[in-house]
Amino acid sequence: MNKKSEHKSKLKEVEGIKQPEKINTTSINKIKLKRAKQPTVEQFVNFIKEGNITYLSKAITLIESTNPKHKEKASKIINACLPHANNSIRIGITGVPGVGKSTFIEALGKLLSSKGKKIAVLAIDPSSSVNKGSILGDKTRMEELVKDANVFIRPSPSGDSLGGVARKTRETIILCEAAGFDTIFIETVGVGQSETVVHSMVDFFLLLKLAGAGDELQGIKRGIIEMADAIVINKADADNKQAAKLAKAEFSRALHLYPLRDDKWSPKVTTCSALNNRGIDEVWNIINDYFKLIKSNNHFNIKRAKQNEFWLLETINQQLLDNFYQNKNISSSLKEELNKINNQQTSPFQAAEKLLGLFGKS
Amino acid sequence: MNKKSEHKSKLKEVEGIKQPEKINTTSINKIKLKRAKQPTVEQFVNFIKEGNITYLSKAITLIESTNPKHKEKASKIINACLPHANNSIRIGITGVPGVGKSTFIEALGKLLSSKGKKIAVLAIDPSSSVNKGSILGDKTRMEELVKDANVFIRPSPSGDSLGGVARKTRETIILCEAAGFDTIFIETVGVGQSETVVHSMVDFFLLLKLAGAGDELQGIKRGIIEMADAIVINKADADNKQAAKLAKAEFSRALHLYPLRDDKWSPKVTTCSALNNRGIDEVWNIINDYFKLIKSNNHFNIKRAKQNEFWLLETINQQLLDNFYQNKNISSSLKEELNKINNQQTSPFQAAEKLLGLFGKS
Repeated sequence: MNKKSEHKSKLKEVEGIKQPEKINTTSINKIKLKRAKQPTVEQFVNFIKEGNITYLSKAITLIESTNPKHKEKASKIINACLPHANNSIRIGITGVPGVGKSTFIEALGKLLSSKGKKIAVLAIDPSSSVNKGSILGDKTRMEELVKDANVFIRPSPSGDSLGGVARKTRETIILCEAAGFDTIFIETVGVGQSETVVHSMVDFFLLLKLAGAGDELQGIKRGIIEMADAIVINKADADNKQAAKLAKAEFSRALHLYPLRDDKWSPKVTTCSALNNRGIDEVWNIINDYFKLIKSNNHFNIKRAKQNEFWLLETINQQLLDNFYQNKNISSSLKEELNKINNQQTSPFQAAEKLLGLFGKS
Repeated sequence: MNKKSEHKSKLKEVEGIKQPEKINTTSINKIKLKRAKQPTVEQFVNFIKEGNITYLSKAITLIESTNPKHKEKASKIINACLPHANNSIRIGITGVPGVGKSTFIEALGKLLSSKGKKIAVLAIDPSSSVNKGSILGDKTRMEELVKDANVFIRPSPSGDSLGGVARKTRETIILCEAAGFDTIFIETVGVGQSETVVHSMVDFFLLLKLAGAGDELQGIKRGIIEMADAIVINKADADNKQAAKLAKAEFSRALHLYPLRDDKWSPKVTTCSALNNRGIDEVWNIINDYFKLIKSNNHFNIKRAKQNEFWLLETINQQLLDNFYQNKNISSSLKEELNKINNQQTSPFQAAEKLLGLFGKS
């Protein structure tokens, strides 16, 4: 093999194609076929910008892949899509299982589609790697929405950590926006800190509640009421109407205890019956009022800039802490020091200094 | 000067004593006198264990010092006091300026002193370095308590960061407990995150509120109601009685919306008039009920172990992040990347990778 052909061979290796022992036309055709199946970054971006759902889905699959080459390609696609993103409203929806999230999203999604909106429905479900498809996995739960040409539905990415799932969803939003979706729904069942994560990537955060269930059944997590831009009491039908009315009054009073927000929005409480398609207009009016307000007082941009900063710092901080806590020397010593602290043999601060010293040496 | 005396001279410099030009007995006596004023770690610990307030105060001054030698000595004293600490109840008290924190602590402190309790009153006020003595600085605000032999009052340490102030207070608690104080009050005015910090170092967290003030005047910070083990509506006197009653009902309803806590305690709401010494017994009964409950179900120890872990991890995490963000290369690049993100030129995740790469190289 002369220098030139050796160079060519290496180039092909770099491109990830093993040089065939003996070149023949069949294998060349196979290579061509394989290449045709893998569109370039440019092709991906052009198709996505045209609103091509097939390529959008494929690009999201690259984002969700654990293969470093796929990740690299995904990064390039995201970067090229960034200038075409950001032109949407992002709505987070949370509520305990059984509150009727899918039915609610179906009802609201149909209303918006009839108004000519293009809707992407995403989900963050940190349990999805264990219990596949607990959110949106079963698309049949949104029977009509899934057939709607204006709607794109994508189940929660799986991932070992909430941070990983969050990052994938955050990047998926960019691609969906570049593909022309103007309304992004992000659903979460509220496992662990997933609500906080969703809250930090949406403009509007909607808490779905049940009417007529005791507080103990509702299991309101601490802090969630304070995050809500609206509380919607679902299943306000027939026998439940009175209970829903009472719940509405109770939540309104609770929200009233909080001080005026920087963006001047006072969170609203309303009732609806997603199943019977009642009160959905009212929810949409609330969402509209909110966006009118925050676009007029610039808090739309302020909030997004803050969220960008949050994600930048959050990603950095998480990596710095992972480097420390995943260090072999640290994890065993950490347990030792904790025991010593709880036996009054050292203080938390002295133990911290010791562990940081160990890390510095490793 | 020969080699030997040069060596001696350097040694003395190390000890921080300038060698006199010409040695005479007067200066030797002065040195002895200066040394006599600095008790050893053992002396400090013995005096503290005897409940000696002068030495307790001096040791706290060492904790608060920025001199590395003082800090080292303070660490040794804390370590030796640790086995004698932990036998107290720690109560956090917060409320906006004007709510009557000092009057309330005076009233509750007098009641406890009359029951034979030994009370230490500490404070966390992150603004104290700017605005000296805004909490407890003016001890005359607790006229009677300051004269009480059972009571030790110490103003907030100053410090450039809340973390620094928190650490100093956390260490001061250890010394106070070793000195035999069985009831520790930690007061905060609630600037920035100071309530969260106080909440993470006390067993019981009490929120003082005003009766008869509009919500907008009360400025309840988000999350604070959820942290409270009791809400006490102060100034429930004369004209304010009816308003206090209404406020009590309103807060009770708000607290009712939260789910049952792990420690099984349901936060209480009560009214009092600290000025007229009314309702203080009731507050103390609530605190007593709480400690009976959490000591019987072991949540007293569970909570303290969790707090220890929190302070260990918090100290480590803060140091790791400081190392990154205080790096010269990082701070300028961080601003650049943030601008790029907000101009859609990069994503928060890509920017994070870039900055972490820069840090790795530095």
